[in-house]
Formats: sequence, C-alpha cells, structure tokens
Amino acid sequence: MINKLVSKIKKLNAPIVVGLDPMLDYVPEHIKIKAFRDRGESLEGAAEAIWRFNKEIVDAIYDLIPAVKPQIAMYEQFGIPGMMAFDKTIKYCKSKDLVVIGDIKRGDIGSTSLAYAIGHLGQAQVGSNYCYGFNEDFATLNPYMGSDGINPFIEVAKKEQRGLFILVKTSNPSSGEFQDQLIDGRPLYELVGEKVAKWGAEHIGECGYSYVGAVVGATYPEEGKALRRLMPKTYILVPGYGAQGGRARDLIHYFNQDGLGAIVNSSRGIIAAYKQPAYAHLGSENFAEAARMAVKDMQKDIASIF
Amino acid sequence: MINKLVSKIKKLNAPIVVGLDPMLDYVPEHIKIKAFRDRGESLEGAAEAIWRFNKEIVDAIYDLIPAVKPQIAMYEQFGIPGMMAFDKTIKYCKSKDLVVIGDIKRGDIGSTSLAYAIGHLGQAQVGSNYCYGFNEDFATLNPYMGSDGINPFIEVAKKEQRGLFILVKTSNPSSGEFQDQLIDGRPLYELVGEKVAKWGAEHIGECGYSYVGAVVGATYPEEGKALRRLMPKTYILVPGYGAQGGRARDLIHYFNQDGLGAIVNSSRGIIAAYKQPAYAHLGSENFAEAARMAVKDMQKDIASIF
Repeated sequence: MINKLVSKIKKLNAPIVVGLDPMLDYVPEHIKIKAFRDRGESLEGAAEAIWRFNKEIVDAIYDLIPAVKPQIAMYEQFGIPGMMAFDKTIKYCKSKDLVVIGDIKRGDIGSTSLAYAIGHLGQAQVGSNYCYGFNEDFATLNPYMGSDGINPFIEVAKKEQRGLFILVKTSNPSSGEFQDQLIDGRPLYELVGEKVAKWGAEHIGECGYSYVGAVVGATYPEEGKALRRLMPKTYILVPGYGAQGGRARDLIHYFNQDGLGAIVNSSRGIIAAYKQPAYAHLGSENFAEAARMAVKDMQKDIASIF
Repeated sequence: MINKLVSKIKKLNAPIVVGLDPMLDYVPEHIKIKAFRDRGESLEGAAEAIWRFNKEIVDAIYDLIPAVKPQIAMYEQFGIPGMMAFDKTIKYCKSKDLVVIGDIKRGDIGSTSLAYAIGHLGQAQVGSNYCYGFNEDFATLNPYMGSDGINPFIEVAKKEQRGLFILVKTSNPSSGEFQDQLIDGRPLYELVGEKVAKWGAEHIGECGYSYVGAVVGATYPEEGKALRRLMPKTYILVPGYGAQGGRARDLIHYFNQDGLGAIVNSSRGIIAAYKQPAYAHLGSENFAEAARMAVKDMQKDIASIF
C-alpha cells in the first residue's frame, strides 16, 4: 500500500492528505437542518450530517489528492451511528480510489493489538469465512507499550499489503511532557524513531520506503529534521500544518532529497475552509468548492518549498 | 463513580474486575453453532456469538463482582456488528448495576481526545439534545501525548461523574522498551505515575481516592510497589493476574493499608475458565458456571494475601 500511496503522490504532485475530521461545528447549517429533519436531533441525525458533509467534500476533491485520513474519534463521539458513518466514509473513499489512513492511534498488548489489526486492516475468521471489518489501508498506532503492541499490526499489514504510521513526536503543545524527556542525553522521541526505523527495515516496498511509517508533527520542525535523518526510509505523516500552526517553509526537512518521504495532513484547513476569510465569499452552501480551492492552495504552498 | 466502585468493592469484599474480552476461541462451540446458524458465518454471526457468550457470563457472575472491563478491541475486530455487541454488552452490564470500565486505551490531541471522551463517557450535543454514545463508567487512556490528551477526559469525567485509568506500567513483556527508560536515573513510568497522581489530586472522591486512576500490570510487582508509594490516592487497575503470569502474593503491594487502592482484572482466567483443568469437568455447556466458580476462587486467592 506504501507503493500505491507514493505512486499517487508522484502522479498528482501532491504530498497531501485531507483529514476527514467532521466536528459538527464544521458542518454547514443547511446540511445539519436537513439531516436532523430526516433523522432527528439524535446520534443518527449527527451521523447523517457528517456523512453527507464528508460525501460532498470527497466528491469535490478526490481527483486532487492521494489520500484521506478520517479521525475515528470524530465518529466514535456519536456512538454506533457515528461508527456507521465512519464505515460508510471509508467505503466511499475507497470507491473513489483514495488511500484511506485510519487515524485510530490504537496500541495494546499482543493479543489485543492483533484484534485491532484484524478489525482495521485485516480479516476476522468466522467459521470458514474471512470478513473485513473497517478495512482501512493504513492505521496510526501508539508505541507506549513497545514491540508487543506493534508486531501484530506489522504481521497483518504484511499479509494484507497495508501500512502503518506510528506516533513518534506528536504535534500538540504538551507532546514534550514525556516525548522530550532525555534518556542518556537523547529525547525519548528519538528512541521511538529509531525503533520505528528498525521495525520497518524489513518491510521496504518497491518504492524504496517502508510500509511502517511515523507520525511527526509539523509544529516541531527541528525535531522533524533530526527524525528525518534517523529514519531515512520511513514515510512521515505530518499533522499540524495550517490550523495547528505548522508552516510550509518548516516542512522541507521532513522530505528527503527525492522530494518524497513525507505526506502533510490538513483537516479543518480544508474541510472547514469556507469559514476562513479567504474562501468565505463562496458562502457556506459552497463549502465543498471552498475545500477544493483550499486543497489547490495547499498544494501550491507545499510545492513552493522545493 | 470512584465512590460507587469502592463501595461495591467493600460490600462484596471483591477487589476484582472481570475482563469481557470474548475472543471467538473462548466461545463454546454450541453457542457459535447457533449464532452462525441464525446470522451466518459473518461479522453479524461472530458478534451475535460473543454477545450471547457475554450475557450468560454476566448472568452467572454479576452478583459477585463490582465491575466488568470489556476490551473494545475484541469487538472492533468484528467491525460495526462487533461495536453493536460492545454497546449491547455495556447496556446489559449497567442494567445489572455493574460498573463498566471501557478498556479503550484512547489518547490524542486536545480536540480529538474531547471527542473520544464525549463518545465514551459523556454526551454529544446534537441540535438542542444531548446524547450518550457508548456510556461507560470508566475509560482507560494512553498518556504518550501528555496533558492535552488527558485533560478533556478529566473535564468530561468530572461533569458526568465518571472515572479514568491511565496507563503507567503495562503488563506485557515489551512494556519496558520505552516505559523503563531512565530519565535522570528514574524510569519513565515513574514520571508518568507522578503525573497521574498530579492530574488526580484535585479530583478526590468521598471515598478518599481520585477518580483519575492508573494501570499497573501484575507482572511487575517491584514496579507496582514503587508506584503505590508514588500515587497514594490513585486507584490502580491491575491487569496481568492469572493467564499473563501475575500471582496473588505479588499483589499485596498494589494495595494500601486500608485494603483498598487496587482492583485486579482477570479476563480469560474467568470467561474461558471452562477450558482449564480445574473446571473442565463442568463441560463447555456449563461455561458460565465455570466462570462463577473461577470468580469465587479468584476472590479467595486475592483475600488470602491480606
């Protein structure tokens, strides 16, 4: 799957992933009104609203981008109906040939991580049948529990030709509380980064990159530079661009000399673009067109650093 | 909710939580055959099998124990039908007045953690209504991203009178890879433990314990002893007893002098008890009776350490 991702990034000249993180606040009123009228001011209504919102966004941008990254928390908050909207969104994105990165940040002891891996990237055996669960192409993982929690994901990813992005240095303000702590003079995130490179070393695709990737926030460019060197064959998923404060000129060191090795995420910067001054003239009815313009502007912004 | 948990532990003299982690391998053949006949060898069939299995177990043991801990991964592996079985299991356990600890190990940046907290412990606002999602009483959390990821859970837990257990030192063999790394001569898990005590300090219930708890594996008794001292008012959820190798005599140091402060989890040791030599004579048809006997034996085993 890393090969498909890299090939789409090259073809579209867009090392970009759009985060499908539909908070209800982002969904224009006209969509909410109709969805609530049809399904009630209920979990079902909320789930219907975010699904309709997602669908219009995807229809407007799928030809410009290689991948989407639905953040499962934004669906889980609406219980079972929310999870059904997550499932529907994944299926729809795959029907548009988008690579789907499930932003799930799972991680547990071995047998439990295997269950997560089966549910998100693999197939559960039920009697004599094998059944896909959520069926994402990539999943994000939390490394706190060490190799036991990661290895089952690697096994399933290998079998099913999927991929992973493991948290190394996250984009949030308090990420340093534990991640920056010095161990023999080096921050914990570097140890995690080295481990990610090691986990991925035996799983390099034809594209030259491993299907075991890393997450490094755009908000910490110096750390990003150090980690790029430590993990030369690791694809880096970069959240925190735009709304969280990461700027394009800070991103150059996340990429390798080949112009590859990183994929930059924007969520509300794209899906809620219609709320920004630059696109507000389009009106909230045309939120999907605003998202398309925002993708094109992001693509230009990122291209400008090379 | 910590008050309710502690009061039930005292009343039942059972610092015990049963992990409802229904791998299909644990479900007796007669249940699988019927469920697959009714719903097919499909995700729906698997979900029906684990739900029927859970229900019989809960019916057999609910009067003996204060709490259950469904591991969400075991449901997520079966996609949407699996999540529906998770939801149904929680509702059923609450109808039996069991405290439900959602073993979800979530954690993300602030706005995303808030969405998880809403989905699992709180209520989503949809129009003018407030709707519960999965509605657990406690949730387990991963601390890797620091305070940003924890604070929204604390806020929601406070508002809704729920509780948390934050991973400090996990029970799995590779937990030391990052958690044991020394920072100024002290392992990372101690720093996390101190932070958990700090997060919880302002949230002490009438029972004298905080509703911000910790997870410390039974498989690391020395570490458990040190952490007990570091976090005197923190309730400790202790996985790893039984099947993972933790022994009762190792558990004494997880408790305070008042005989409280820890709750010990057993999952397959209870729910798959019928597969153990000690209970095999009951036969797989009587798996729920075997679970009940295993709970009683666990209760005696834990009581023997005081």
